Amino acid sequence: MNARIFALLIALVFTATASMAQAADPLSSWNDGPTKQSIMAFVAKVTTVGSSDFVPEPERIAVFDNDGTLWPEQPMYFQLFFALDRVKALAPQHPEWETTVPFASLLKGDVKAALSGGEKAILEIVMATHAGMTTTEFEQIVTDWVAAARHPKTGKLFTEMVYQPMLELLAYLRENGFKTFIVSGGGIEFMRPWTEAVYGIPPEQVVGSSIKTTFEMREGGPVLVRLPEIDFIDDKEGKPVGIHSHIGRRPIAAFGNSDGDLQMLQWTTAGDGLRFGFLVHHTDAEREWAYDRDSHIGRLDKALNEARQQGWTVVDMQNDWKVIYPFQKD
Amino acid sequence: MNARIFALLIALVFTATASMAQAADPLSSWNDGPTKQSIMAFVAKVTTVGSSDFVPEPERIAVFDNDGTLWPEQPMYFQLFFALDRVKALAPQHPEWETTVPFASLLKGDVKAALSGGEKAILEIVMATHAGMTTTEFEQIVTDWVAAARHPKTGKLFTEMVYQPMLELLAYLRENGFKTFIVSGGGIEFMRPWTEAVYGIPPEQVVGSSIKTTFEMREGGPVLVRLPEIDFIDDKEGKPVGIHSHIGRRPIAAFGNSDGDLQMLQWTTAGDGLRFGFLVHHTDAEREWAYDRDSHIGRLDKALNEARQQGWTVVDMQNDWKVIYPFQKD
Repeated sequence: MNARIFALLIALVFTATASMAQAADPLSSWNDGPTKQSIMAFVAKVTTVGSSDFVPEPERIAVFDNDGTLWPEQPMYFQLFFALDRVKALAPQHPEWETTVPFASLLKGDVKAALSGGEKAILEIVMATHAGMTTTEFEQIVTDWVAAARHPKTGKLFTEMVYQPMLELLAYLRENGFKTFIVSGGGIEFMRPWTEAVYGIPPEQVVGSSIKTTFEMREGGPVLVRLPEIDFIDDKEGKPVGIHSHIGRRPIAAFGNSDGDLQMLQWTTAGDGLRFGFLVHHTDAEREWAYDRDSHIGRLDKALNEARQQGWTVVDMQNDWKVIYPFQKD
Repeated sequence: MNARIFALLIALVFTATASMAQAADPLSSWNDGPTKQSIMAFVAKVTTVGSSDFVPEPERIAVFDNDGTLWPEQPMYFQLFFALDRVKALAPQHPEWETTVPFASLLKGDVKAALSGGEKAILEIVMATHAGMTTTEFEQIVTDWVAAARHPKTGKLFTEMVYQPMLELLAYLRENGFKTFIVSGGGIEFMRPWTEAVYGIPPEQVVGSSIKTTFEMREGGPVLVRLPEIDFIDDKEGKPVGIHSHIGRRPIAAFGNSDGDLQMLQWTTAGDGLRFGFLVHHTDAEREWAYDRDSHIGRLDKALNEARQQGWTVVDMQNDWKVIYPFQKD
């Protein structure tokens, strides 16, 4: 074999090896570095039989916040876009909204004025748009909206704006015997119609905020009717409560991005044995948004301090993620 | 080959075939007949690819009541035995109970007098015994009780008194791609510590009644504290609500035994496509208990009428089940 052919063969072997390594990388949208390493080291430890950190498969529970962790939450929660679109759609049936706060402002296109009423205004908007129909009807409304509505900045469907690195992380954990759950402050019934297709997370593994429902026997058969009354707020101290109610055991890994996830991370990481706490830090003003301690949405302040004290993994979105959204992949 | 050897070989082949058939019967504690046939026909239809009744695996959700469906509920709900044992254990810390209704009667051994106060008395007993500790502490209390307490009639551990035919049915459904859930009027946290070991149903697939819990950060770390306040009653109209809240999609098969399960069966069987409704009828006074329309526990009246109208499968315990409990197997 002459030297040129030998060099060519070596080059071929290297190329093949490199491309195999790339194909085999379950977190290929993550830059190499301590963040990616910390995830893979945790998974290796809890899945190695005989290791002192080994966790049996049924106990490999991982919980994920949604807004700001699996998809963005700027310039406002995506569910609020849904609610505003519903106000417009329902307005013809509610002539009184033309002169009622906060609906009048909304219908004039002044979202800021509408939301200036704070929690009370948001609650009124949510109840007017999320209650008063059967659960089956609401599921259809959400399904139709998700298939058509587009984000004002990117022009993409909201479900196209999920974070590619987090999709890879979800799949990687499941390949390693984890059961993945969403534990979100968002509405449980707003998420369930699409989480299976978008995240691979079935409805029974979605935990969220809820309004009350009631069983009714109608002429056409039984229905569940959505009532304009808060049932449960799955945020802050509510997250461990929601986890306990729905999952019934403590997760070994928790993924969030804001102070609303602090108690979920505290509860998860305080369990016995190896645990994993993880925060997405929104540091990428160019490709996504950059915000933390002073943001009115997804404020990350106390949880960031505690992450440093506790040694939780903090993702620097700008430096740790090769791409943000699936549509940016090669 | 002479005729004797030939006959012997034939006999051997027959024996082998018969024992193989028996080993392969997933419902071997069920007598052959229409009940067993209806179960197996349903499973065959929804699992046959290309059949018009085919149901994809993620939608194969089966829900089971617990008391009277997976284990007995006589002479009173097993959770009430637990509560009474807890009253005795806690009495030294509650000297006031010696003169307080309903505790005084209980401590004198007069259960009937104690329960004569109806729902109010039961609620007081439940709150005194199920609240005021952390979720972790309560789990340990239940685990210890289940490992030691025995049924007054059989002398067996309560978890030894699960129905063998129903254990086979649970396993058979799971082997056919079903996800099995408990949907019980009993306490969710009273069941979760042992359902995985006894029924193969993990905590996240248990739905039940609950009291409120609250998150607290203590010196030793975060805890969830059980409060003396009803959160949710998972019975009658509550069962479809609990199913929707925890599972988020409509089951295709529902298994119950009393009027408390009627709405769950209505909700399940009103869905599109092939559905399966199933009731255990307690007809076996000798091996278990016989009761239905007039029973104060597990009354089966309206649901029995509707089962006949709707064509739901009704198990005649005396005739359909070869054995009741696992300890009666050969």
